[in-house]
Amino acid sequence: MISINQKKLLNSLSHKKYRVKHSLFLLEGDKLIRDALEQNTKNLVKIKQIWATEEWKNSLPDSLEFQNEIIEIVNAEDLKSFSSMTSPPGLIAIAQLPEFEFSTSILKEEVTIVLDSIRDPGNLGTIIRTADWFGFKNIICSKDCVDAYNTKVVQASMGAVLRVSVYYQSLPELIMNARKLKVRSFGATMDGVSIYDSYIKRPAMVIFGNESTGISSEIKDLLDEKIHIPGNSPHGDGSESLNVGSSAAIVCAEIRRRGL
Amino acid sequence: MISINQKKLLNSLSHKKYRVKHSLFLLEGDKLIRDALEQNTKNLVKIKQIWATEEWKNSLPDSLEFQNEIIEIVNAEDLKSFSSMTSPPGLIAIAQLPEFEFSTSILKEEVTIVLDSIRDPGNLGTIIRTADWFGFKNIICSKDCVDAYNTKVVQASMGAVLRVSVYYQSLPELIMNARKLKVRSFGATMDGVSIYDSYIKRPAMVIFGNESTGISSEIKDLLDEKIHIPGNSPHGDGSESLNVGSSAAIVCAEIRRRGL
Repeated sequence: MISINQKKLLNSLSHKKYRVKHSLFLLEGDKLIRDALEQNTKNLVKIKQIWATEEWKNSLPDSLEFQNEIIEIVNAEDLKSFSSMTSPPGLIAIAQLPEFEFSTSILKEEVTIVLDSIRDPGNLGTIIRTADWFGFKNIICSKDCVDAYNTKVVQASMGAVLRVSVYYQSLPELIMNARKLKVRSFGATMDGVSIYDSYIKRPAMVIFGNESTGISSEIKDLLDEKIHIPGNSPHGDGSESLNVGSSAAIVCAEIRRRGL
Repeated sequence: MISINQKKLLNSLSHKKYRVKHSLFLLEGDKLIRDALEQNTKNLVKIKQIWATEEWKNSLPDSLEFQNEIIEIVNAEDLKSFSSMTSPPGLIAIAQLPEFEFSTSILKEEVTIVLDSIRDPGNLGTIIRTADWFGFKNIICSKDCVDAYNTKVVQASMGAVLRVSVYYQSLPELIMNARKLKVRSFGATMDGVSIYDSYIKRPAMVIFGNESTGISSEIKDLLDEKIHIPGNSPHGDGSESLNVGSSAAIVCAEIRRRGL
């Protein structure tokens, strides 16, 4: 059974304030928690507790069994009320909120994804998943981006948030400090140079902006180059923009295609 | 005021069954409805009715004014209960469900996006938006894909669903018929040829599969070529897959980059 105090804790973790206070975040779903268990064995994430059904526990492979002590058996009904998912998976876990110390030196010799005011949890999760797929190790978010340990972000990232380091920084400051290290700043905008003509090379940052308003004007003024993804609407009146997750995917793929 | 019958109608349109029965679908949000009004003047969509606040109506540019007769003034409170959005926009509209007659001849001389069992409205909407951005005119969905006129799909497409024709077809049949027209079928899978080495040329179909299970095995067996987007995780244990909206964006961009 989940105790009243545990229930309070689990409920509180849907708010960033309490995630920070308890230094914990929520994980939901079979695939995500199995993934986290594997990461746990590599010390990439620290799972504190899993509440699961007997059936789920029995389905774990032997290799994960030594972690039995963090699994508490509960009945599926008991878990339903904590799930944000439409088909509650019969298990939930809490893990320690990672703490990453930011240093501009992580920008050296890398192409780093930077996000300005991304508000939609699905978009941030998708971008983290894309970054992970293409082997980008770090994402830097402006302080008004949605929190990476928001349950919906964790879910949409399909666990990639356990592998990619997400930092929250003041972007104007970041760009200025990066410049001192000769890290150039590219921004995905509606105008600028075609991504296929842009000479992105390491070290660089590629910045993607807010879902409605794009990159803020303050940041735009600080960019070394504006880039855009050429649309190809033959009737000339297609969509005004791409979804930011789609833009980030196209740019990340193009960077890797060039072997950057 | 919105009458009781109108309220019933609006509520019913969240279900596909009633969208088909009434041959109507819902539009929400300022940007989307303005967009639709413009499309309306071009006869690309037929808006039947808009319920909006006085303030919104007064904000319309003169060029759209002749459509005044389809706008009914209501108060913002009255609209709230129909909105699926967290910040209800103070207006809602209904438009005629388009009817597209499918013919395999639309595949000729095109690269067509085909979706096998896409269930998430956000993903379908994003793919429609991407297709529109890159000027793909048609999307063909398997019959178990989410409905393109689902309010969340319409929303995520940012109105692109008003410009892209979305057909629902039996995919095995489609592929067999397409083959007779020498239209080749490419499928985005986890293995296969790198998209950068694949020789896609018109006419072709590119198929993307379900969020969890990918392309169904029945369809896989019918493909002319499996393609994949190479990941580049240096630590070799990154995300297992990309979000389907991200995959579709990368493939669409690559097709257009090659001038296809």
